[in-house]
Amino acid sequence: MRILGIDPGLTRCGIGIIDVDSRRSARLVHVGVVRGKPGMATHFRLKQIADGIRDAIATYSPELVAIERVFVQDNLQSVTTTMMVMGVAMAETGRANLPMAVHTPSEVKAAVTGNGKAQKPQVQAMVQRILGLDAPPKPADAADALAIAICQAWRGSGLLGSGSDEDFSVSLSGKVTSRRELTPAQQQWAAAQAKTRRTGAVDPRRRQAKQSK
Amino acid sequence: MRILGIDPGLTRCGIGIIDVDSRRSARLVHVGVVRGKPGMATHFRLKQIADGIRDAIATYSPELVAIERVFVQDNLQSVTTTMMVMGVAMAETGRANLPMAVHTPSEVKAAVTGNGKAQKPQVQAMVQRILGLDAPPKPADAADALAIAICQAWRGSGLLGSGSDEDFSVSLSGKVTSRRELTPAQQQWAAAQAKTRRTGAVDPRRRQAKQSK
Repeated sequence: MRILGIDPGLTRCGIGIIDVDSRRSARLVHVGVVRGKPGMATHFRLKQIADGIRDAIATYSPELVAIERVFVQDNLQSVTTTMMVMGVAMAETGRANLPMAVHTPSEVKAAVTGNGKAQKPQVQAMVQRILGLDAPPKPADAADALAIAICQAWRGSGLLGSGSDEDFSVSLSGKVTSRRELTPAQQQWAAAQAKTRRTGAVDPRRRQAKQSK
Repeated sequence: MRILGIDPGLTRCGIGIIDVDSRRSARLVHVGVVRGKPGMATHFRLKQIADGIRDAIATYSPELVAIERVFVQDNLQSVTTTMMVMGVAMAETGRANLPMAVHTPSEVKAAVTGNGKAQKPQVQAMVQRILGLDAPPKPADAADALAIAICQAWRGSGLLGSGSDEDFSVSLSGKVTSRRELTPAQQQWAAAQAKTRRTGAVDPRRRQAKQSK
């Protein structure tokens, strides 16, 4: 299972891709940051981020996309632009016809470090250990994107489902609650669907990589 | 000058296109609503809206896109999804390499009716009168999109500029303030740029329509 994690932000949008096997062992595939050129008008920066996410999906063919949902804190402006980036990331995921999951920062931290209030360096160190890297992934935004992908691989919940007018609600404290989390059976189905859809177009190297697992 | 007005919303995203001549006389080109299928996961609905905006730009070749910025009221969930739609609309405008402007609802109402607190029926009636239509445009969302385009045609401000890290700020009351509004000279330049870019690809019918103005 290949998962793309996205840490949304207008200045830096983290992108992390991992492969996870059936024993939940994770391997780094790609990590990077899409940057909107500073000084550009917001809509052109959003275009660059949309293109970067589209290209990452086209290049690495993830089977699922997971994104972090920011807190609605006092900095409403930052939330505003982050929500815009989130919308752009979601639309690109929809265009790629992939299932999508949303996790809160505390869910991500708890999944990776066991502590929902872990600091950035702890998250970085655990991401490094989990993926067996020689050094913590950099920049920090990129580590967060990998942490989101790992969270999705290990928790498996948070999938945006169908059959509801709104997939998730937001409380005033900023906590996102998935209204319709898929059951484990539905998740397996979604994962299988994603795999089936891609069977015809699998890169031979990827097929080989899968077989060697 | 052809202007596309967008009234962002996840359930219904209004799209209105007008032509404005040098005497600020406005003519209806197209009006409609892009709907995300209810019951679909949010990222697939955002994809549909992104595709709808992309198609409208490709079909009608606007020279500028104006969008309405929602208020941050008590309904944080609605704001959340509206911000996502706004991000999607902005990224598609960026992909089309067009200038973009943002207006608050009160700016739009004031421009069209002279009253920043006008009710929907007043706005609809004025949009009908301004565009010389036989009946108020329907649905109401579509009328709002036309009002946004008219607001842009008549006010001309609100353009997202370059040279700033953030094009607009958001106060806690939800008011958006453009930090860098372009000077009239810059606006003319942006409009001229947009026109020049399209000269090679003008639909003959459009060229004729322009000549007959």
